[in-house]
Amino acid sequence: MVSKKIAVLPGDGIGPEVCRQAVKVLQAVAERFGHRFEMRNHLMGACAIDATGDPLPEATLTACREADAVLLGAIGDPKYDNDPSAKVRPEQGLLRLRKSLGLYANIRPVTAYDVLLNHSPLKRERIQGTDMVIFRELTGGIYFGEKGRTADGTSAYDHCTYSRDEILRIAHLAFKAAAGRRQKLTLVDKANVLETSRLWREVVREMAAQYPEVEVDYLFVDNAAMQIILNPTQFDVILTENMFGDIISDEASVIAGSMGLLPSASVGAEVALFEPIHGSYPQAKGKGIANPIAAILSAAMLLEHLDLNTEAAMVREAVDEALHNGILTQELSPNAPYSTEEVGSYIAFWI
Amino acid sequence: MVSKKIAVLPGDGIGPEVCRQAVKVLQAVAERFGHRFEMRNHLMGACAIDATGDPLPEATLTACREADAVLLGAIGDPKYDNDPSAKVRPEQGLLRLRKSLGLYANIRPVTAYDVLLNHSPLKRERIQGTDMVIFRELTGGIYFGEKGRTADGTSAYDHCTYSRDEILRIAHLAFKAAAGRRQKLTLVDKANVLETSRLWREVVREMAAQYPEVEVDYLFVDNAAMQIILNPTQFDVILTENMFGDIISDEASVIAGSMGLLPSASVGAEVALFEPIHGSYPQAKGKGIANPIAAILSAAMLLEHLDLNTEAAMVREAVDEALHNGILTQELSPNAPYSTEEVGSYIAFWI
Ligand SMILES: CC(C)[C@H](C(=O)O)[C@@H](O)C(=O)O
Ligand SMILES: CC(C)[C@H](C(=O)O)[C@@H](O)C(=O)O
Repeated sequence: MVSKKIAVLPGDGIGPEVCRQAVKVLQAVAERFGHRFEMRNHLMGACAIDATGDPLPEATLTACREADAVLLGAIGDPKYDNDPSAKVRPEQGLLRLRKSLGLYANIRPVTAYDVLLNHSPLKRERIQGTDMVIFRELTGGIYFGEKGRTADGTSAYDHCTYSRDEILRIAHLAFKAAAGRRQKLTLVDKANVLETSRLWREVVREMAAQYPEVEVDYLFVDNAAMQIILNPTQFDVILTENMFGDIISDEASVIAGSMGLLPSASVGAEVALFEPIHGSYPQAKGKGIANPIAAILSAAMLLEHLDLNTEAAMVREAVDEALHNGILTQELSPNAPYSTEEVGSYIAFWI
Repeated sequence: MVSKKIAVLPGDGIGPEVCRQAVKVLQAVAERFGHRFEMRNHLMGACAIDATGDPLPEATLTACREADAVLLGAIGDPKYDNDPSAKVRPEQGLLRLRKSLGLYANIRPVTAYDVLLNHSPLKRERIQGTDMVIFRELTGGIYFGEKGRTADGTSAYDHCTYSRDEILRIAHLAFKAAAGRRQKLTLVDKANVLETSRLWREVVREMAAQYPEVEVDYLFVDNAAMQIILNPTQFDVILTENMFGDIISDEASVIAGSMGLLPSASVGAEVALFEPIHGSYPQAKGKGIANPIAAILSAAMLLEHLDLNTEAAMVREAVDEALHNGILTQELSPNAPYSTEEVGSYIAFWI
């Protein structure tokens, strides 16, 4: 019996709907095991800008710092995308949150679910058995480097930098994960062009000696973008920098047949954060068609992070139950869809 | 009857083998139409380092400058990839050549050939009808920005910069191409994070007024990496910066079922360059298994660039003939493969 504080950031678009289902499932876990999960909602993203002018209000950051874990829905609103020069944007809240909490590693498992192979745009025989985890560096690189315009406004710049320490800390996590899995680590970089990539390769090569059981592979990012589609089962753990990780982890998500299935964890110095990889999907907001499974599996990762492994396993089994019994939202079952709420309740019921 | 000088840079790995077939086809075109193509080989890449210590010897650059067009095979050798900190690398030759010749736009058509749909890792119904062209900026961005290490060697940096002019010149090419095709242009960027991307979006948005017939769309690169696989037929012309273009154009190449089919053109201020998108594929070198079609279609693009459109059409028809009649190299016809040489000769024969 444990007592935990979970800060919930529902965010924008479909974020609140899917978060509600994940919270429902966590509540079911708490009841079943006699735990106490204190779950409070806090503002982040476009909704926070609307309410306070700030995408990441101080109160939210404080609540996250005081929590044992953070559950995030999704953030973003098209009204900001259409005005990229807007001074305040929802994404800034997310980036600031990652930086403030020191969430330097984004961890994204990509699995091809047997029952959903038909939904993938890829041929069954290519993807069957896919089981990889992408470790994306999340608080460095070109995302957080100096950026701006020249004085006359005719040029813009973004600086990418990486230090050995930034590489080391996430690489250790990735090596450890690989050691506990199929013992293969692939570094994705562009070492034939970028100096930062050459530093990544150097550091990873040095570290490899400390993990003799892990076989290390190096792939240029352009080649990786092909290999992920051509032969995804070759990968076990992929390690990469922030920008490349953003691109290839979204690319890899198509394997599963729906973005609505894929969770992620962001870990680092302090409290860890868990979120579905999908965005705020504003077109679907309020329609009850959003798939809550990515959020629910994010909650499962959260439980594992809190060392509640039996509880997490039970959530995963309940999700499998839903998948096997066709309790699926519209994108996976267009002819007989269940609603966001129904899928969430079904899964909570199985706990 | 024309007389043209074509500088041929066979390069490394399978480069020389596939170039030889493209040259054979160009020779057949010359004979058939009574043209004179003066084609001479020049050193570039790892072979140039071995022979002269320089991946792009001055003589090669001069020959390219004096030519009407350049045909390139492929460059690169694993002995350099394994030592990313090597001071001299084949890629430097290619990057320097692009910069020296002002080749600011890399143009890559991606087509799903009906006869080869089965070879694609993607399901037939997703890719049938795919017909897009990617315009990748080729002489700017993080590839050519300042890069290096801090004094103590513990940090590395790469600077990405773009000026309005760099964006304008390639965007005009892309808009014009879209106007002559299905009138759709998609800018791929990361304007929610990068200042350079915001400049790209600004410039493209301003230009859109000059091309009222072209519908303009904006996609974040992570989303683009998914959409290219989920729904490739939605794209007509894609415009993007150097690094994103490197990644998504290789990713898009999987649609065709083989990299061995895809040509590219690099155009700009001076002479234009044509090359298959595949690399030097050192494992296949000398085995006669490399597909020469990408090089041959690059030669077709070269002919179009020289305004020899009838000639180019004939090369394309001859390639179709080979595809339809199953005259295919190993990766497309593992049970009854034809050699590099046989495929090239078959296509030359049809001219
Ligand atoms: C919203 C955006 C800033 C973010 C990113 O690029 O990191 C998103 O794409 C993600 O992957 O979490
Ligand atoms: C070889 C390498 C430097 C090059 C690039 O990244 O531009 C290649 O991948 C390409 O796309 O032509």
